[in-house]
Amino acid sequence: MTNKIIHKERGSIYATNNLSAYLKKVLDDLKPSSIFILTDTNTLAFCLPKFLSENDYLDQPEILVIEAGEAHKHIDTCVALWDDLSNRGADRKSLLINLGGGVVTDIGGFVAATFKRGIEFVHVPTSLLAMVDASVGGKNGVDLGVLKNQIGVIREPLAVFIDPGYLNTLPKEQITSGYAEMLKHGLIHSEEYWTKVQGFNPNQREETAQLIWDSVLIKNTIVLKDPLEKNERKTLNYGHTLGHAIESYCLDASERPDLLHGEAIAIGMILATFISSELEGFPSEKLSEVSRIILKHFPKTAFTKKDIESILELLVYDKKNSHGKVCFVLLTSIGKHKMRCDVPNEVIYKAFDYYKNF
Amino acid sequence: MTNKIIHKERGSIYATNNLSAYLKKVLDDLKPSSIFILTDTNTLAFCLPKFLSENDYLDQPEILVIEAGEAHKHIDTCVALWDDLSNRGADRKSLLINLGGGVVTDIGGFVAATFKRGIEFVHVPTSLLAMVDASVGGKNGVDLGVLKNQIGVIREPLAVFIDPGYLNTLPKEQITSGYAEMLKHGLIHSEEYWTKVQGFNPNQREETAQLIWDSVLIKNTIVLKDPLEKNERKTLNYGHTLGHAIESYCLDASERPDLLHGEAIAIGMILATFISSELEGFPSEKLSEVSRIILKHFPKTAFTKKDIESILELLVYDKKNSHGKVCFVLLTSIGKHKMRCDVPNEVIYKAFDYYKNF
Repeated sequence: MTNKIIHKERGSIYATNNLSAYLKKVLDDLKPSSIFILTDTNTLAFCLPKFLSENDYLDQPEILVIEAGEAHKHIDTCVALWDDLSNRGADRKSLLINLGGGVVTDIGGFVAATFKRGIEFVHVPTSLLAMVDASVGGKNGVDLGVLKNQIGVIREPLAVFIDPGYLNTLPKEQITSGYAEMLKHGLIHSEEYWTKVQGFNPNQREETAQLIWDSVLIKNTIVLKDPLEKNERKTLNYGHTLGHAIESYCLDASERPDLLHGEAIAIGMILATFISSELEGFPSEKLSEVSRIILKHFPKTAFTKKDIESILELLVYDKKNSHGKVCFVLLTSIGKHKMRCDVPNEVIYKAFDYYKNF
Repeated sequence: MTNKIIHKERGSIYATNNLSAYLKKVLDDLKPSSIFILTDTNTLAFCLPKFLSENDYLDQPEILVIEAGEAHKHIDTCVALWDDLSNRGADRKSLLINLGGGVVTDIGGFVAATFKRGIEFVHVPTSLLAMVDASVGGKNGVDLGVLKNQIGVIREPLAVFIDPGYLNTLPKEQITSGYAEMLKHGLIHSEEYWTKVQGFNPNQREETAQLIWDSVLIKNTIVLKDPLEKNERKTLNYGHTLGHAIESYCLDASERPDLLHGEAIAIGMILATFISSELEGFPSEKLSEVSRIILKHFPKTAFTKKDIESILELLVYDKKNSHGKVCFVLLTSIGKHKMRCDVPNEVIYKAFDYYKNF
């Protein structure tokens, strides 16, 4: 058992050791007409038994299952789920519980937000990535072709139940993938959290729960200030402009292995930090530190000139862009950002060179 | 030219004779990165030329086209539009102008609300139904199989530009279809508007514009009080519980001709008014008046016992229902409603009998 549990309700965050009692309270208040639990093939096997045994007052919830993996984060999966909900009698007062990683919370949030123009939903994130990132802030949606998260809405779940105990079910690379977003929170927030998060070790349960709490708090504070991503929320995209393009490119290129989200974002953060040092005076000794820390956890990936050209082509589809310009969030130092930076292509090529030779 | 034009912006309604100047002001304020106009095959031919010539300051807008008709109000059409927007370089600052009837405004609103988690959109309704109903209140979405409007969100457009001049492009049965919703506004609002709307004649331009204004005002007032349809907004569903089921059934039954939305709602209103007189004391002489007025404009349709059984089966999928019960809005008299009424099936059968023998 973990010794620290966190949950969150529309902007408020609490620590508790009894998530189950709180979920029961949510259900007693809401009185849903029926309860559906969305899982993927992994969380069905590894997380649902724990969830059901801890919440044994749930009266025969309906279980929905999707295939695991980013490749299934498509509108076809939503159509199958909408049909399934409809055929199994879901109505406007039904509740959807999304039990899984970022793909499950992204799809489940979108399906709930659009089914009969919106039913209530809660998230139970089971991956580190979903705990510290996907489940906070109300973003949901699916990919369009290879383009990440192009279709979706912003809608907050009724509550998010974060139980670090589910991390025991995750393979190591999935933990590392989520860790990339925690490193990002360090870079955009403060030298202090950047130093603290370097001590992350998933085997130390108590410290892990504390770092998850800190990361959720940082993201939540930013989202509350700017829910619709007009300004400060854009800082959460640090490393994502190139990171998403790299992730899409690898997902589409059949000869390359797919990268996990965090693996792509890790590369994107090194590139963005190099660009920050070239264009915005980010200290060069800190650039080396950032690169070193990231590469300690994430394997290096090789890119040919042709790869980089294709990645640059994908950049223009990024949601952060408008009026045909690619916009970067850069840093002037750790914890200090500059938004809407215009980056010439040659600096991006130089950044890939830096990454290759580091 | 019409002599009265109406527009509306997030809850405020104004009358103006110069929609074009107001659209220009909206664009000057918004500064969209690009402008897309969604049409269907009908409005492309009959409405777009008028729109472009009246708004000649628009600099080469991109034109999107979908097939006309309710049968295309499906998620596949959305996928094609999302792809089209993406391939033609739409970004988060692009604007979508929906030029068409209810199918175009419903699909276009949903596509815009979900593309890159939401881009701005405006409606230019060209059918009477869209002017008095679909374009007010922010509901959007698509059908799921035969089930009407199961997938969507509620999001208000930036502005709605209502120009009764477009009614000249409509066939007669399309005008009548929209008129059903105006009759409904009379029934749920007041004896006064119920009497006034009976004088509707689309050839009398000035009076028509006035009645459209009144209907928009009635719907808008209700929506502003209850945007998320927790209470009073449900009254706008008067006649729709059975009406939608009848519409879905006819759309699906290959041996039956499809009904227009208003034609199905007209039948639904006679049935709901009969049920109101059986269960809620709606005056019987008024029931005869309502039936007579509606049947003056809408052709009678025959239903077999088997038809009615299938329609009753579809009822349980209605969005207005929850906890497995079918909920009706009924009237105790014109302008006075009662919500969440439980109606036994035998009363529904009696209502179909009444309709058949009237």
